[in-house]
Amino acid sequence: MVTAQTPTNIAVIKYWGKRDETLILPVNDSISLTLDPSHLCTTTTVAVSSAFHQDRMWLNAKEISLSGGRFQSCLREIRARACDVEDENKGIKITKEDWAKLHLHIASYNNFPTAAGLASSAAGFACLAYALGKLMNVKEDESQLSAIARQGSGSACRSLFGGFVKWIMGKEDNGSDSLAVQLADEKHWDDLVIVIAVKETSSTSGMCESVETSLLLQHRAKEIVPKRILQMEEAIKNRDFASFSQLTCADSNQFHAVCLDTSPPIFYMNDTSHRIISIAEKWNRSEEAPQVAYTFDAGPNAVLIARNRKAATSLIQRLLYYFPPNSDDLSSYIIGDKSIAKDAGINGIQDVEALPPPPEIKDNIPPQKYKGDVSYFICTRPGRGPVLLSDNSQALLNGETGLPK
Amino acid sequence: MVTAQTPTNIAVIKYWGKRDETLILPVNDSISLTLDPSHLCTTTTVAVSSAFHQDRMWLNAKEISLSGGRFQSCLREIRARACDVEDENKGIKITKEDWAKLHLHIASYNNFPTAAGLASSAAGFACLAYALGKLMNVKEDESQLSAIARQGSGSACRSLFGGFVKWIMGKEDNGSDSLAVQLADEKHWDDLVIVIAVKETSSTSGMCESVETSLLLQHRAKEIVPKRILQMEEAIKNRDFASFSQLTCADSNQFHAVCLDTSPPIFYMNDTSHRIISIAEKWNRSEEAPQVAYTFDAGPNAVLIARNRKAATSLIQRLLYYFPPNSDDLSSYIIGDKSIAKDAGINGIQDVEALPPPPEIKDNIPPQKYKGDVSYFICTRPGRGPVLLSDNSQALLNGETGLPK
Repeated sequence: MVTAQTPTNIAVIKYWGKRDETLILPVNDSISLTLDPSHLCTTTTVAVSSAFHQDRMWLNAKEISLSGGRFQSCLREIRARACDVEDENKGIKITKEDWAKLHLHIASYNNFPTAAGLASSAAGFACLAYALGKLMNVKEDESQLSAIARQGSGSACRSLFGGFVKWIMGKEDNGSDSLAVQLADEKHWDDLVIVIAVKETSSTSGMCESVETSLLLQHRAKEIVPKRILQMEEAIKNRDFASFSQLTCADSNQFHAVCLDTSPPIFYMNDTSHRIISIAEKWNRSEEAPQVAYTFDAGPNAVLIARNRKAATSLIQRLLYYFPPNSDDLSSYIIGDKSIAKDAGINGIQDVEALPPPPEIKDNIPPQKYKGDVSYFICTRPGRGPVLLSDNSQALLNGETGLPK
Repeated sequence: MVTAQTPTNIAVIKYWGKRDETLILPVNDSISLTLDPSHLCTTTTVAVSSAFHQDRMWLNAKEISLSGGRFQSCLREIRARACDVEDENKGIKITKEDWAKLHLHIASYNNFPTAAGLASSAAGFACLAYALGKLMNVKEDESQLSAIARQGSGSACRSLFGGFVKWIMGKEDNGSDSLAVQLADEKHWDDLVIVIAVKETSSTSGMCESVETSLLLQHRAKEIVPKRILQMEEAIKNRDFASFSQLTCADSNQFHAVCLDTSPPIFYMNDTSHRIISIAEKWNRSEEAPQVAYTFDAGPNAVLIARNRKAATSLIQRLLYYFPPNSDDLSSYIIGDKSIAKDAGINGIQDVEALPPPPEIKDNIPPQKYKGDVSYFICTRPGRGPVLLSDNSQALLNGETGLPK
């Protein structure tokens, strides 16, 4: 039995459009930032036993089917790379050949809402590939494992590393070179603070429709993204927040532009998303240098990246000013790293109510507030890649029964 | 004194992006449908008198400045083409040369909200150019006048004709070949019914920012629009609603995609616009052939084009089902051609309340309604081009004083 923990990631240069649906091969490279797993992560326990009669899986304590092609691809690819496992103390001996016949139990848990546009499938498939790789003594490195996780969910490949990660689209038809590499680890640029404004909705995808109907998608993939990838790598290397912010915002907006150019059009951003963008843009333009970058995935949640802790406290003040909570309970409204709100002088609802309008609002009319339009905020930071949890008390399966605890 | 009436128009292949800011020369051709002036039009009276001391203008009975470059361009270009005017009965004799010294009074009135995203500046500048052309005995035809109106507001050039109109971008640096031509008159395809869902907001433009920052705009202008223009001309010629609808919706969505790809991004559509698109898309997909096209200009107002009267009654039922009025007063909620609502069985608020959910909603949960999210609906049809109003009682200026009535 092995238990692993894997982070989520947020793309700053977006993946949108596949050239191969089954192998999940993208039409362009993408770059992401891995988020701290203390706040957003998947934990997965995988177990093997000759007593198991079939492969089974539980997600957030509820059994789910493993019959889907994406699960089957991951299981098949990992099994093909399994090696001998021997532990004399525990009396375990499994040969390379045994793995094809043995069944698995898998339990997975997200410490954040699943399917709310928070990259749960990315963390999930990365954790599955990583945990199974450890269980089956797979010799492949993280990049090679990422090419397996990719076949579960494209962006999962980027969750095999901490810090800044590039998913190289690759050229091969079999997808063997479509994998993730680390650009910089999570310590390289640890000034950054991430605030996610969550509005819970069900997430849907329309990527195939975009590839089939958007006349702008191929132009983006072929002409625009390759240049942006180089610029973004340079910005990350130099911790150049002005360039990082400009590229991140422009690429998020262009991804949503391609969604809109799809038939039927796809709208992931709503009026609240638009308002958050306006708040960020107005603030950035009022300062000498950009203070915050924004990016939106396939849902209305805003991921805001502040240049440093000082900017993050100013950001949280602005966000709370415009989007005060519906209830007085701040502790469930600002989650994750709560110290940012404390630094911003926000200890209770009365501090939210006392917030002045941001100084960049120059007209005398106080701006409209949008109470209740954000479900909650998550404060976090750049985070590490997958880790094994060796403490068996953290396992999600019972060592005796092989069933969820 | 001359009084003219000019229609508004709605682009079905959009104009977005100028290659020359002063002359207002676009980066691509566009095609529009002229709307019936009985429901949406500008009326303009222009008067000349040696007693006038300066050029003056009143818009909706309020004096406005004529010092702006766009007004000055139109006045200069028209004056340069003025010819001798002689009316023995009235004892008028103005020579070509006199026009440079004589001052004008201009009064203009929109029978619909100004600057609410309903192309008021298009109708306005078209009417100004047309009325002045008549007053000054300008020999140029409508196409040549359109090149003058264009210098007031780009899309104004398309309001010089009824029916379907193409604005040819032209090649000349001086803009002389950037003008409108009629593709088909308003009788060519008079099955079409237009319903505009109005949400009053102030309109803003960000066209320059798009040209400067959107990496998709040039690709759209150079590679995509030229093909679409040919397809749209063919669809109009053949009254092929399926192609017309597909092109209209795709081009509207792509225009908004380019807006989103601008830095800072421009959002003209809001959640209500997105909902109207979803309603139209869902309905179209549930039918054998598309029933309605949608298009949005630089504002949240939806312009819906139904394939015929039957489709229009089904459309108005759907719209009223989802967007019931805030008050019980239907007469100010559905304006323009009210017979469409009558045909749909809508005579009072009780008929709106009794509307069943559209049959394409297959799940058992009744869909959410959005009361008050639309300000009002305008029902109209394809319309004629500019006309002179010879009845002096319709003039907006007093024949004695030269001031607004």
